[in-house]
Amino acid sequence: MGLFSKDIKTLDDLFVHTLQDIYYAEHQIKKALPDMMEKASDPQLKQAFKKHLGETEEQIKLVEKVFGLHGHKPKEVTCPAINGIIDEAQDITSDVADKKVLDAALIAAAQAVEHYEINRYGTLTAWAKQLGREDSAAILHQILEQEKATDVTLNGIAKSSVNTKAA
Amino acid sequence: MGLFSKDIKTLDDLFVHTLQDIYYAEHQIKKALPDMMEKASDPQLKQAFKKHLGETEEQIKLVEKVFGLHGHKPKEVTCPAINGIIDEAQDITSDVADKKVLDAALIAAAQAVEHYEINRYGTLTAWAKQLGREDSAAILHQILEQEKATDVTLNGIAKSSVNTKAA
Repeated sequence: MGLFSKDIKTLDDLFVHTLQDIYYAEHQIKKALPDMMEKASDPQLKQAFKKHLGETEEQIKLVEKVFGLHGHKPKEVTCPAINGIIDEAQDITSDVADKKVLDAALIAAAQAVEHYEINRYGTLTAWAKQLGREDSAAILHQILEQEKATDVTLNGIAKSSVNTKAA
Repeated sequence: MGLFSKDIKTLDDLFVHTLQDIYYAEHQIKKALPDMMEKASDPQLKQAFKKHLGETEEQIKLVEKVFGLHGHKPKEVTCPAINGIIDEAQDITSDVADKKVLDAALIAAAQAVEHYEINRYGTLTAWAKQLGREDSAAILHQILEQEKATDVTLNGIAKSSVNTKAA
């Protein structure tokens, strides 16, 4: 799809475009996570990032499966939203001197990423159902639940440990 | 706060920085909403955007109140995340030819914005509580609930009307 090319004519086109967008986003997240893991001091947080890196790799394969179900080859389209979210994460975490405050900033940045993914997979699941594609909807819903669980884990780490230490 | 300046030393600094970030984001959203309102065909969707524009103006004033409570003048810092999310919304909605598919794309874009705000206000509320600032936490929580309600409204419009028409 090109900018302003009016290439998106049907909900199916919009679905595939958004799949290409999240496919790009997942690859960017995969690239960003090792740096976040390295910056984190809290062992639970480090572990959560490590686990999410593994999940992200799985999710990339699941998204490829959905491309296949729709008769498309996996393709990335640049997603300015995830680029902005990751740029902001890198800026803010480079601006924090104290390690405990840095952990709080890292959780906030990771939750911004999670919320973006939750939103996109929620939309994709709804569209797949609307298109009568229960097969794709089931896979997308599985990823959605994984993203929600990651967000809950990050919330738990923030409340039980990181925010208290940072304050 | 400057890039890589290590200006953020405490959770309070991080709180104020994130407040400046969402203050910028709210202004960008205020600028973007009239265009989304104009592009929308579904009357319920048009109305939801109009209502959210009014709420955004109120939220800007509420954020200013939180700045005041913390002894800071309201200030914006560029938020690459919201810029990316809005750029993407403009790109995708310019790429869709069919009006009904465009409505589906507009809802998805608006929900990406809402999820960003829900995430940021959730974080800010948690940090305000951690800092013992129940006064600020109450205001931020009020905005958070409004953002969540907008997301629920958009979901309802998508499911009851827009996605069906788009398919």
